[in-house]
Amino acid sequence: MTSHFALDARLQQDCHLLGRLPMSHLLLVDKAEVPWFVLVPETVEIELCDLDARAQATLQDETNRVARFVRAAFPITKLNVGALGNIVRQMHVHVIGRRDDDPWWPGPAWGQPSAGGYRAEQVAEIGARVARELGGDYRAA
Amino acid sequence: MTSHFALDARLQQDCHLLGRLPMSHLLLVDKAEVPWFVLVPETVEIELCDLDARAQATLQDETNRVARFVRAAFPITKLNVGALGNIVRQMHVHVIGRRDDDPWWPGPAWGQPSAGGYRAEQVAEIGARVARELGGDYRAA
Repeated sequence: MTSHFALDARLQQDCHLLGRLPMSHLLLVDKAEVPWFVLVPETVEIELCDLDARAQATLQDETNRVARFVRAAFPITKLNVGALGNIVRQMHVHVIGRRDDDPWWPGPAWGQPSAGGYRAEQVAEIGARVARELGGDYRAA
Repeated sequence: MTSHFALDARLQQDCHLLGRLPMSHLLLVDKAEVPWFVLVPETVEIELCDLDARAQATLQDETNRVARFVRAAFPITKLNVGALGNIVRQMHVHVIGRRDDDPWWPGPAWGQPSAGGYRAEQVAEIGARVARELGGDYRAA
């Protein structure tokens, strides 16, 4: 963990910062069609396979926790979990809850047009649910 | 590991079976635009977050090995790693080597049109490289 970690500008622009787990900052992508979260671990590595075993296990655990939250908190058909990074190179892991009636189903969520984002009170409400469900070592932003 | 494991029919249709690691079968997606591999772990779970810690660690290790192979064996810009499963529900993890001059860059590879697949000798050549590089507990199909 570095105290000089800076969240990528594009992620800041496209997402709402909700809070953080021990390793990762947790963001909500501002596309209200589906519950779409992003974990940004504090690392300078770009590829998952370059994390050491301990960091990889921690990130996996945090990803599990967010995935289980998404499944419990939203009516979803399938979780989509991925690390792409073709546009934003800073390591980040997507956890997306997909429904078989969402506008992009069954295609991938990435790169799809969005009708727009969340109202401030919706972001606050989702943030409160995350804080309640992740609990413990989660810190709201 | 069950001895009754059956690879999903759609995966069989869309991919070449190359071999297997201790937990996962290794497939090559028949879209020659990019090096695109799929690991299919022998499990009845659908979501990564439902694997127990040991299974998750094994799958992560096998995914790392394939990811490092892709990066070493092909001229790529970025690895894309993901588990979606909107169409094929059987758990599978994609490891895709993307180039900034591939036809789909920087969008996701999933759902894109492909000009076609590999010739048999290309599949054999890639399979031989996989076997040489993964070595050890990898078994060619």
